Amino acid sequence: MRSTKEILEAAKMSAPKLALADGEQINKALLKIAELLCTDESVNAILAANERDVERAEGISEVMKDRLRLDPKRIAAMANGIKAVAALPSPLGKTVSEIARPNGLIIKKVSVGIGVIAIIYESRPGVTSDAAALALKSGNVCILRGGKEAFLTSSEIVRVIRQGLSVTGLPEDAVTLIEDTTRQSALELMRANGYVDMLIPRGSAGLIKACVENATVPCIQTGAGICHIYVDKSADFSKALNIVENAKTSRPSVCNAAEVCLVDCAIAEQFLPLLRERLAEVELRLDERAQEYISGTPAGEADFDTEFLDYILAVGVVDGVDGAIEHISKHSTHHSEAIIAEDKATCEAFTRQIDSAAVYVNASTRFTDGGEFGFGCEMGISTQKLHARGPMGLSELTTYKYIITGDGQIR
Amino acid sequence: MRSTKEILEAAKMSAPKLALADGEQINKALLKIAELLCTDESVNAILAANERDVERAEGISEVMKDRLRLDPKRIAAMANGIKAVAALPSPLGKTVSEIARPNGLIIKKVSVGIGVIAIIYESRPGVTSDAAALALKSGNVCILRGGKEAFLTSSEIVRVIRQGLSVTGLPEDAVTLIEDTTRQSALELMRANGYVDMLIPRGSAGLIKACVENATVPCIQTGAGICHIYVDKSADFSKALNIVENAKTSRPSVCNAAEVCLVDCAIAEQFLPLLRERLAEVELRLDERAQEYISGTPAGEADFDTEFLDYILAVGVVDGVDGAIEHISKHSTHHSEAIIAEDKATCEAFTRQIDSAAVYVNASTRFTDGGEFGFGCEMGISTQKLHARGPMGLSELTTYKYIITGDGQIR
Repeated sequence: MRSTKEILEAAKMSAPKLALADGEQINKALLKIAELLCTDESVNAILAANERDVERAEGISEVMKDRLRLDPKRIAAMANGIKAVAALPSPLGKTVSEIARPNGLIIKKVSVGIGVIAIIYESRPGVTSDAAALALKSGNVCILRGGKEAFLTSSEIVRVIRQGLSVTGLPEDAVTLIEDTTRQSALELMRANGYVDMLIPRGSAGLIKACVENATVPCIQTGAGICHIYVDKSADFSKALNIVENAKTSRPSVCNAAEVCLVDCAIAEQFLPLLRERLAEVELRLDERAQEYISGTPAGEADFDTEFLDYILAVGVVDGVDGAIEHISKHSTHHSEAIIAEDKATCEAFTRQIDSAAVYVNASTRFTDGGEFGFGCEMGISTQKLHARGPMGLSELTTYKYIITGDGQIR
Repeated sequence: MRSTKEILEAAKMSAPKLALADGEQINKALLKIAELLCTDESVNAILAANERDVERAEGISEVMKDRLRLDPKRIAAMANGIKAVAALPSPLGKTVSEIARPNGLIIKKVSVGIGVIAIIYESRPGVTSDAAALALKSGNVCILRGGKEAFLTSSEIVRVIRQGLSVTGLPEDAVTLIEDTTRQSALELMRANGYVDMLIPRGSAGLIKACVENATVPCIQTGAGICHIYVDKSADFSKALNIVENAKTSRPSVCNAAEVCLVDCAIAEQFLPLLRERLAEVELRLDERAQEYISGTPAGEADFDTEFLDYILAVGVVDGVDGAIEHISKHSTHHSEAIIAEDKATCEAFTRQIDSAAVYVNASTRFTDGGEFGFGCEMGISTQKLHARGPMGLSELTTYKYIITGDGQIR
């Protein structure tokens, strides 16, 4: 078994080699990996490993087992995902800006991979190929640390990826799977300063919290979204009802689903009964003011700070847009918030003062997604404010360096 | 005394108010602050507080006392610094990109302040006004936590800043000084998730390390630089000698000074004696291969990982550009590195594979500086790779949000 320390060393030393590859070489490797994944030999090996994983996974729920289980169709979907990433434009080697200084120095700001990305995730084997493809395409070495339930499956997938890298002349160690599946290895990655340039946790709120709290390497906070929709007195009620319904019920289990609806006190009496009627299948948790107009569960204090991920919506009545901004500023997870209003000045006040990755005017929060934004892919949705906000596509997996060319200049 | 918790709450709630101010209003406030700093009343109050600070500061060295001590000229310089920041273009409210989606959604990516920036620094009172001005100009609320030696002085400066904010209609709590000067308050800031969006430590390597290791809020790693200069066999010796001399000796105490010179083995015999002669005043710490050609202190293992900040240079002989890249990849602090070479392909290999904020071709590493890059100012030099690299000017103190405008779109 390779130790985590050995893997970190190898990953670090392969980063400069990967930096020599241009977008075309990387695409060649990705397409080769997609091809190799679909050979009979690979499919059989992956399915056999997967069967052993499923057998070993005794204690887990049927839902989890379904996530873990692969079939030839799911493997083909992985390969197609890799091909789709290859087809996207390369984010590398772009001159972001160029400054000519009076002393003759030319300062070019050029987009480059970040270096070594560590991804800690749970038991979906599809994340293995997906994350590796996005990391490679954006010029990054990646270290994958998946859940122990999917370890044998992921090992086979990574073996194929490394084979694809090797036959196309890229460093194998650009993609590695951590072999130690105890907590210890996750902790080692979180504290691998000087080796890991960016840590991305993908999975449950608990996993993300553990990473944010324990990481000393730069960590991207993803995921949790308590998305608010504010319905202003100037709202078109039909738009408002459609949007709240869509944002709450089209897929309640995802981070861009709405969890809170705030209603302007000026229209609460008319709007709330309509909302109650439209969301017949949803449990409404009402603050005191909302309880004056409709019936529902009285909201506890925690209900305005909970990501329900279910058919539950916290409903509150606020004093116009300023009340909504004050409420959201206190309870925001900086993911996505929407205003439903026809009055332009009100919308402007909202979009300026609400501090979230995505601020919507008259549209559903469900659009916060790499695909819906036209990025073609996504590594996750950042809810922090440094480096990247919102859907993280390929550009968000790059950084830049300054290349300064002179002719002997000294200071 | 206001508790750190109270200050954090107030800062967080003043961020949406500050977000309403545009570049012009912020400039008005900055110019008012500069004006107020120079009134007789302020100057007298600041100098009186400063005198008490200097008196209290019994145990500290004369150098530290000099850093702490203010006079009317230094206060005028602070005011001029603020005016210079006001004169720079505003980084706020720029549309970075705009996408029209097939479903009619307009997705605008707009530059905005990051939110609440906490700055932990040591005993230079000038940092107080400088950091506050940069934070305000970039639309950020700032919480300042200075060293206890300068507490009374900084309190007076912040009092004037808050007065300037207040009379120009901006929220006072956009700039606050932490009143608890024990370690406890620094730790509270490092762990103020949900309140502090970005932590910037400014000061000694020890301070920065403590922040990186203890912070659970996003922290910018600044400062430490073990800058390398590689002299290739294709180098113009006269450029090489000028650049190494300048990078080492023009100001050895700063982070962009060179600490290591690597020489191509193909020219070591000719070049090293010239380097020895040119750097007569510098102690050279030589690796085994360099010792074959010139005399000097034999280098210990630590000498290639030390930021000397002094007239000391570690010198090594490497096998061409590949050897240099391998050495630098192992020992880099990702700050600034230079190659001295006339061969274009060699320069290209170096700039592609070296993973540092600034990579120089035939120029001194001393240029890594906000002023020298034409940014007009600087909050520090980032040596991490997320969010910002190299000199952090105003743009690097902003983030973006997506403002999505629809007409009732649902997904």
